[in-house]
Amino acid sequence: MRNIKLIIEYDGSNYSGWQRQDNALTVQEVVEKALFRLTGNKIDTIGSSRTDAGVHARGQVANFLTDSTIPPEKFASAINSKLPRDVSIISSEEVDIDFHSRYSSKGKKYSYTIINRSAPPAYMKNFYAYYPYKLNFENMKKAAECLIGTHDFAAFKSEGGSVKTSVRTIWNIDLRKDKDMILLEIEGDGFLYNMVRIIVGTLVEIGRGRKSPEMMPIILESKTRKMSGQTAPASGLCLEKIYY
Amino acid sequence: MRNIKLIIEYDGSNYSGWQRQDNALTVQEVVEKALFRLTGNKIDTIGSSRTDAGVHARGQVANFLTDSTIPPEKFASAINSKLPRDVSIISSEEVDIDFHSRYSSKGKKYSYTIINRSAPPAYMKNFYAYYPYKLNFENMKKAAECLIGTHDFAAFKSEGGSVKTSVRTIWNIDLRKDKDMILLEIEGDGFLYNMVRIIVGTLVEIGRGRKSPEMMPIILESKTRKMSGQTAPASGLCLEKIYY
Repeated sequence: MRNIKLIIEYDGSNYSGWQRQDNALTVQEVVEKALFRLTGNKIDTIGSSRTDAGVHARGQVANFLTDSTIPPEKFASAINSKLPRDVSIISSEEVDIDFHSRYSSKGKKYSYTIINRSAPPAYMKNFYAYYPYKLNFENMKKAAECLIGTHDFAAFKSEGGSVKTSVRTIWNIDLRKDKDMILLEIEGDGFLYNMVRIIVGTLVEIGRGRKSPEMMPIILESKTRKMSGQTAPASGLCLEKIYY
Repeated sequence: MRNIKLIIEYDGSNYSGWQRQDNALTVQEVVEKALFRLTGNKIDTIGSSRTDAGVHARGQVANFLTDSTIPPEKFASAINSKLPRDVSIISSEEVDIDFHSRYSSKGKKYSYTIINRSAPPAYMKNFYAYYPYKLNFENMKKAAECLIGTHDFAAFKSEGGSVKTSVRTIWNIDLRKDKDMILLEIEGDGFLYNMVRIIVGTLVEIGRGRKSPEMMPIILESKTRKMSGQTAPASGLCLEKIYY
């Protein structure tokens, strides 16, 4: 058996996330169906991240075991020929048999894109979150920087994940503004359920002036979900990269 | 009667272009339907540019005459409340009664975005053209620069436009590369039918090595459509701005 690692890009707009579910279309399902059509075998893939409904990926990673004789680097184009156009395998390679997309991961990078102007976006609308009220970018940037480092992120976690600890390390947060667009890039050793979207929702409340930037460390220390902002929309979020 | 100018953004993926047609859904039709629902009157809009099926816009301009008492700057959000989500009015203002979106235009800016890598794009796929073979960016850039200035662009024009002259002035062409993405921005006093897409198709043939960059001035001078490259896909094109 060989262990094949895939890097997967998708437009999550029409999917109920990555992870296979009954009665809902997921990215994992279409990838596994493509693998079945390709190899004739039922293949289970291991994805590095569950992404939620409507969340996108440019760097999702999944691996699977196979005895297929297809050369490892040829899997990408072979699977793509069986996939719908909103899912694409960027690359495929053989990896050590011990490699596990989730457990071997050392960290992740996400991006989150906001359109901040009075009119709702039409162009690329499924890839943005839209906030019509004026956001103070400098205050958002200042507040975001408080999150860098190792903290208990319990205040930035939705119910539903099953993790032992809510301590995570954020390596870097980069917040940039280009005309009406605010782009957040965040890297860390791991993220709790909805963590990036709750961070963004909190930054938006700070940008809007409902909370001061000085509130960010207080929210963090409170370890209380009620203190942070709303979960920002799925559409703005993209899983950019998994680090191994 | 007042003359109202709209700046319109749209995702052209599901439209047969801007201009009203029988038996095909167009952006102009949905805007005029929204205006009818809003004002109770059948209103004809004048668009600055016909965009083709699948072409996008972030800065289409249209104007219309109305005796509605809606304040001019309120039209944008009022129309948006009646529009599908893939069309958005960015702004509305009252302009001089003589203002005509097409005839008053002094020039336009388009962008064209290419994804150049082996795997087809899934994320934002409707907003890119995809070329899997390796493109030499420096050769494309060199060739693009030959087009700046006033030339007869007959070699870069599809049949079907009804214009007196094919002489146009390109003010600026900017070609940038960011990882797998090549972005072209082009500004000029006017563009012939399919001109930007044929320019891109020709640059792609040069990037691919099927034509040398030195061929560009020769193609231009030939004034012959057969000398230039294929018309590049609609999806990569976006009407960015109209200058008045």
